[in-house]
Amino acid sequence: SMGAAPRVRTESGWDFRPFGRIQYDMGYVSGRDRLMDPGLGWSNELRRGRIGVRGAIPGGFEYKVEVDFAGNDVTLTDALISYDAGDFKITVGQHNPFQSLEELTSSRFTSFIERAAFTDAFGFERRVGLSVNYANGDFRWDGGVFTSNIDDLTSDEQDSYSFDTRAVYSPEVGGAQLHFGGSLHWRDLQSQPGNRYRQRPLVHSTDTRMIATPTLPVTEETSYGLEAAVIRGPFHAVAEVHWLEAELFGMTDPTFFGGYAEAGLFLTPGDTRGYSGGKFNRTRPARTVDEGGIGAVQINVRYDYLDLNDAGVVGGQQNLIGASVIWTPIDHARLSLSYGHIEYDDAAIPAGADRNYSVDSFGVRAEVDF
Amino acid sequence: SMGAAPRVRTESGWDFRPFGRIQYDMGYVSGRDRLMDPGLGWSNELRRGRIGVRGAIPGGFEYKVEVDFAGNDVTLTDALISYDAGDFKITVGQHNPFQSLEELTSSRFTSFIERAAFTDAFGFERRVGLSVNYANGDFRWDGGVFTSNIDDLTSDEQDSYSFDTRAVYSPEVGGAQLHFGGSLHWRDLQSQPGNRYRQRPLVHSTDTRMIATPTLPVTEETSYGLEAAVIRGPFHAVAEVHWLEAELFGMTDPTFFGGYAEAGLFLTPGDTRGYSGGKFNRTRPARTVDEGGIGAVQINVRYDYLDLNDAGVVGGQQNLIGASVIWTPIDHARLSLSYGHIEYDDAAIPAGADRNYSVDSFGVRAEVDF
Amino acid sequence: SMGAAPRVRTESGWDFRPFGRIQYDMGYVSGRDRLMDPGLGWSNELRRGRIGVRGAIPGGFEYKVEVDFAGNDVTLTDALISYDAGDFKITVGQHNPFQSLEELTSSRFTSFIERAAFTDAFGFERRVGLSVNYANGDFRWDGGVFTSNIDDLTSDEQDSYSFDTRAVYSPEVGGAQLHFGGSLHWRDLQSQPGNRYRQRPLVHSTDTRMIATPTLPVTEETSYGLEAAVIRGPFHAVAEVHWLEAELFGMTDPTFFGGYAEAGLFLTPGDTRGYSGGKFNRTRPARTVDEGGIGAVQINVRYDYLDLNDAGVVGGQQNLIGASVIWTPIDHARLSLSYGHIEYDDAAIPAGADRNYSVDSFGVRAEVDF
Repeated sequence: SMGAAPRVRTESGWDFRPFGRIQYDMGYVSGRDRLMDPGLGWSNELRRGRIGVRGAIPGGFEYKVEVDFAGNDVTLTDALISYDAGDFKITVGQHNPFQSLEELTSSRFTSFIERAAFTDAFGFERRVGLSVNYANGDFRWDGGVFTSNIDDLTSDEQDSYSFDTRAVYSPEVGGAQLHFGGSLHWRDLQSQPGNRYRQRPLVHSTDTRMIATPTLPVTEETSYGLEAAVIRGPFHAVAEVHWLEAELFGMTDPTFFGGYAEAGLFLTPGDTRGYSGGKFNRTRPARTVDEGGIGAVQINVRYDYLDLNDAGVVGGQQNLIGASVIWTPIDHARLSLSYGHIEYDDAAIPAGADRNYSVDSFGVRAEVDF
Repeated sequence: SMGAAPRVRTESGWDFRPFGRIQYDMGYVSGRDRLMDPGLGWSNELRRGRIGVRGAIPGGFEYKVEVDFAGNDVTLTDALISYDAGDFKITVGQHNPFQSLEELTSSRFTSFIERAAFTDAFGFERRVGLSVNYANGDFRWDGGVFTSNIDDLTSDEQDSYSFDTRAVYSPEVGGAQLHFGGSLHWRDLQSQPGNRYRQRPLVHSTDTRMIATPTLPVTEETSYGLEAAVIRGPFHAVAEVHWLEAELFGMTDPTFFGGYAEAGLFLTPGDTRGYSGGKFNRTRPARTVDEGGIGAVQINVRYDYLDLNDAGVVGGQQNLIGASVIWTPIDHARLSLSYGHIEYDDAAIPAGADRNYSVDSFGVRAEVDF
Repeated sequence: SMGAAPRVRTESGWDFRPFGRIQYDMGYVSGRDRLMDPGLGWSNELRRGRIGVRGAIPGGFEYKVEVDFAGNDVTLTDALISYDAGDFKITVGQHNPFQSLEELTSSRFTSFIERAAFTDAFGFERRVGLSVNYANGDFRWDGGVFTSNIDDLTSDEQDSYSFDTRAVYSPEVGGAQLHFGGSLHWRDLQSQPGNRYRQRPLVHSTDTRMIATPTLPVTEETSYGLEAAVIRGPFHAVAEVHWLEAELFGMTDPTFFGGYAEAGLFLTPGDTRGYSGGKFNRTRPARTVDEGGIGAVQINVRYDYLDLNDAGVVGGQQNLIGASVIWTPIDHARLSLSYGHIEYDDAAIPAGADRNYSVDSFGVRAEVDF
């Protein structure tokens, strides 16, 4: 069978499929002169350039390897083996430790070209681990133990580990897809302590982070979040909150907080946001361009808050108001425009002597996936 | 359908195809003792080891990602998304800014194992950009705006940009395929000024460049070239000239010049050089080895000139006389031998106190593509 | 047709197949406190994460490119072009210089998660070369000239070369597959002299080597080995010995020695170890899990010796007694447990003042290949 790439399946259960994505971004962040930072202003990059293969081996085994070549470098994303035992599924290898709805939703299907501020700020990333998934009807639960990502594991002295778990209840009620979730995470940084928390201004092609803590002597992290979403026809709304408590060596432990609320609407009749497996999924336009339609057009608005000030640590606060337009001419192609007005308090990078200021951020992304 | 790799197409317009190439070189450059350079003499390398995927999405969208792993490292070559709108085609992503016939012709189809000296000397490379192609009958035109290559864009301070355009007229006249082209380029190096111009001695596995300017305070580059070629049966001839004017900060602006003239002949009856889309294309031997033939055998001769001396800059001059033999046993396999006698004046690397000398360069390449 | 990945073949001789492997290891090595080494104790890593393509072009041409992304980096393994001329086969590109049965057997099919100590200690690795294979009935011979691996060849001053040859006689006698082999190698390190010999403690995720010579002024290496193996039904036994004589500049030339003996038994009826082309091959369980069986279960024991003490060089001696269990639920999936008790004499890393001590090593690997 064939989506964007061919999938080869046999009756006995063998399955093989290449896949990938290309995402090009052009972005603009104001404040280049005021912050005296040549990394602001216009910038562009290959945001993601990925090729992967996935498949199944009879008896319940599945595998997936995906490599991101953006930046002329190698980053393994998912690299895993799983075993499917009915309602339970066991996964070993590098995968996401069930951090949050926003993080788990593929970058191909997010509403803005960059995710909510807390996801990067709190260091969400794929890690090598062993996890169990249980799915039954509208309920799913994931739990696992994780070490570090593949890159950090190239050091044999890296011995941090974490326990991560998430539960989701996603019933359909009166034609509406509901989503309620919560996750809990605890990580011991062991012999490699230290971490910092920071985030870019809604555009990834700049490396400037106005909101950032200094490197803190973190020994343990406890974090927990709540998720709620609804999809009904062309409309969707979603909100999340997430707290991260960092245990510091010789200092008071701060608790940082982030969250966002978002609403979106398809302007094209018959279109709706996809949802599957406890996260948002692909939008399949009702009338694609090859069939004479104009594809799907969606508008979204978002409020995104991040507070990295606590217990004497001053990392800054962010209040972002954003809007986006997403054009999906056909299932596997997308053009997105994202805009954010971001107010910073106690910013890590001063504008002269001023640490309370705002910037405007604009990004456009051209994208295909296969 | 299948060339060297399978191509999967559906009636609705989905298309997917993996592709790649392997090129192994062994080379010899004389002068190791005279120039006291251990990088000369015999050398060998994996010249190119590439794997890529390309495909189409109904509605006119196409994509291509190709990764070169030569040198145990990642270099993205083409990484692009395009939209086909009848006579016009819009491309976004990393691709070649239409520099010259020699540069645009795939390394699988060139007449010598390395391209004419001016192509590397003038810094031709793929860059991220947005371009439009117009093709109608014998005429095609490309124009676009480009930033930098993906590797340089990993720095958010990289903000150079260029405008690039090329026009080609390629009629068939009396059984001969003619090609006339011209291209024009202007680049502003913005906040990352500085460049140097240099070239290897017809073999890539050495890193020694006898002809090279020092790093110059380049702020802008204007370059332009002319192309002419003819293919008639077993015979082809091609010539190009290219000028590059470098605007220097606080110095007189030099104009460098390069060009080559080449003629080739197939010794095997029925063979001819492929041509398509404003560049040379694959040779498909009339009688391949699997059908009892000996494939295609082609001999070529070339004169290749490069002048990097101007306006007080002394980068050297190159006069190269070369010959090559290419054996193509079947469409996707090739064995090439290239020889060049290269005379340098004002060489960047002295032989004792002598900067006017000649070297002999010999290279052999084994190659498959799929 | 389809193994774990689809293979596309045409009647005219075109052939194309993607392939790859994922191997995750978790390991434990005792002695962390005694040796004061934080790289010991528990560790885990993506041992291998490979994607490749191979194919054939009519007329006898074949190609293969395989990239390992473990460690978020690129390592080309096989990258080669070959030409098949009946009993003879010519290969150009990076491939294994026929070092030993243990080294040539794919990591997908070895009995322990890491190979015998001498294979890494003596620097076995793939290199770029030109080789000839002759195979006729039960006899096969390989011989070639090699330079360096692709990574080292990125330096144009790397000019080492070697001659390598191996012969194998593998008759079937009375239902038993026998294997007798021998190899001979000579390498000149030319202008890049110097080498060291060392090995990890049966687990790759630690970088600590208890047995190791210092860097020696090696100018040439001569090595030779003998191989013998037998497979009969569920039983197999294999033994190898290998000597390496290092020619040192200004010092007496030491000869190092390594070898192992191994026996294994399948506990599941009908299973046997695969053998093909002068090396061990895939185990295909008689009753796979998808057909209601439990797959193949194999137990193995091994003695592995390495002596890096000679002619005044003190690199240490290793005596390893190991055992492993391999569960192969279906052809392309494997779960392995390896244990080794390793006694070191004259260890390179002292435990306090003691250089004679033992460590225990334990490793588990989850693996699929396609």
